[in-house]
Amino acid sequence: MADQWLTSLITPTPQAGFELAITLSRRGVKYAQPDVDVLHKLRPEYADSAAGLTAASQVVAINFQTIAAANGYWRG
Amino acid sequence: MADQWLTSLITPTPQAGFELAITLSRRGVKYAQPDVDVLHKLRPEYADSAAGLTAASQVVAINFQTIAAANGYWRG
Amino acid sequence: MADQWLTSLITPTPQAGFELAITLSRRGVKYAQPDVDVLHKLRPEYADSAAGLTAASQVVAINFQTIAAANGYWRG
Amino acid sequence: MADQWLTSLITPTPQAGFELAITLSRRGVKYAQPDVDVLHKLRPEYADSAAGLTAASQVVAINFQTIAAANGYWRG
Amino acid sequence: MADQWLTSLITPTPQAGFELAITLSRRGVKYAQPDVDVLHKLRPEYADSAAGLTAASQVVAINFQTIAAANGYWRG
Amino acid sequence: MADQWLTSLITPTPQAGFELAITLSRRGVKYAQPDVDVLHKLRPEYADSAAGLTAASQVVAINFQTIAAANGYWRG
Repeated sequence: MADQWLTSLITPTPQAGFELAITLSRRGVKYAQPDVDVLHKLRPEYADSAAGLTAASQVVAINFQTIAAANGYWRG
Repeated sequence: MADQWLTSLITPTPQAGFELAITLSRRGVKYAQPDVDVLHKLRPEYADSAAGLTAASQVVAINFQTIAAANGYWRG
Repeated sequence: MADQWLTSLITPTPQAGFELAITLSRRGVKYAQPDVDVLHKLRPEYADSAAGLTAASQVVAINFQTIAAANGYWRG
Repeated sequence: MADQWLTSLITPTPQAGFELAITLSRRGVKYAQPDVDVLHKLRPEYADSAAGLTAASQVVAINFQTIAAANGYWRG
Repeated sequence: MADQWLTSLITPTPQAGFELAITLSRRGVKYAQPDVDVLHKLRPEYADSAAGLTAASQVVAINFQTIAAANGYWRG
Repeated sequence: MADQWLTSLITPTPQAGFELAITLSRRGVKYAQPDVDVLHKLRPEYADSAAGLTAASQVVAINFQTIAAANGYWRG
């Protein structure tokens, strides 16, 4: 995974920060399982499961804490 | 998901902040599963399960940490 | 849920803060499942289960972090 | 639960802080299940289970974060 | 458990801090289950299970947050 | 595990910080299960499981919080 995908935690808006938190969460998965076909096959396991979706939302929440702090909470 | 739904983390009261934390938690789910019909079908899986509800409450608690910090804990 | 239940995170003592953390944790559940009868029916699922009680205690711990920070840890 | 059990987060040493974190974790359980007989009956469910013990240790870790911050990390 | 095992959160290096985080995580388990024979018997339950190892690593991560903050992140 | 593997939390970029977070997460596992053959055998248990991958991503997110704070969020 030699590509450059994360050069800054700073985002213009909270929503862009939330979307970056989603990117971080997915990257955390991809580093553990780089095979896109396997990831595709596993998708229903969490996307069609309440427990899986709640767990995914929790990882996003943790990453959003980091990004929000980095951006001074976009207090303006 | 092109709509603008998060322009600020600042809320007038702690309760409004808690409700924003719920919105963030739901959005974290929606980004992973945008299909509203699937989400509707999955609802009983967590809303009628003690473990599912506790997990949902935990995601809210994590997002509320972020929002409370953003608002200086509404110390006034 | 139009009632006003959270107007401040400030509490006179750490114990009152811990009890507010419990309130927040329960409210997180109630927003996801507002039907009191369902909640009542689900109670044994977590209150008579070690895993359920540990999970509940974890949500309280997360909310207590927020409230303790809000109160400057009641350092006096 | 009218007794006063938490009047301060300040402890003389990190170890006393860790032990207070354990107290908080147990209290989080007790508020959800005040019946001591039930708690006693449930004990093997987590104390004889690796998953249960790891989960318990995680709640302690979260509460210890709060107490360590309250004590300025006992930096002296 | 009258022995003194935690007199400071300060460590000379990040790696020593990480190892202290492991100690804290194990102590969190030991307070809940002091019987070393039981702990020994339970070891395969988590050490030979991906879920168990990930959960253990998560507790270490949480304790490492505390220790890293205590040490000013060993910034220099 | 006498080797020196963590001398600093400072990284040149957020992406390098994220990769260090992955290293910390794996080390947390390795301290609990140092046998590389066992780890290799367990890999499919989490890498081919949505729940396992989400849990792994969560540990990375927690460690990334620590590293991001250590680096002042690479604010420049």
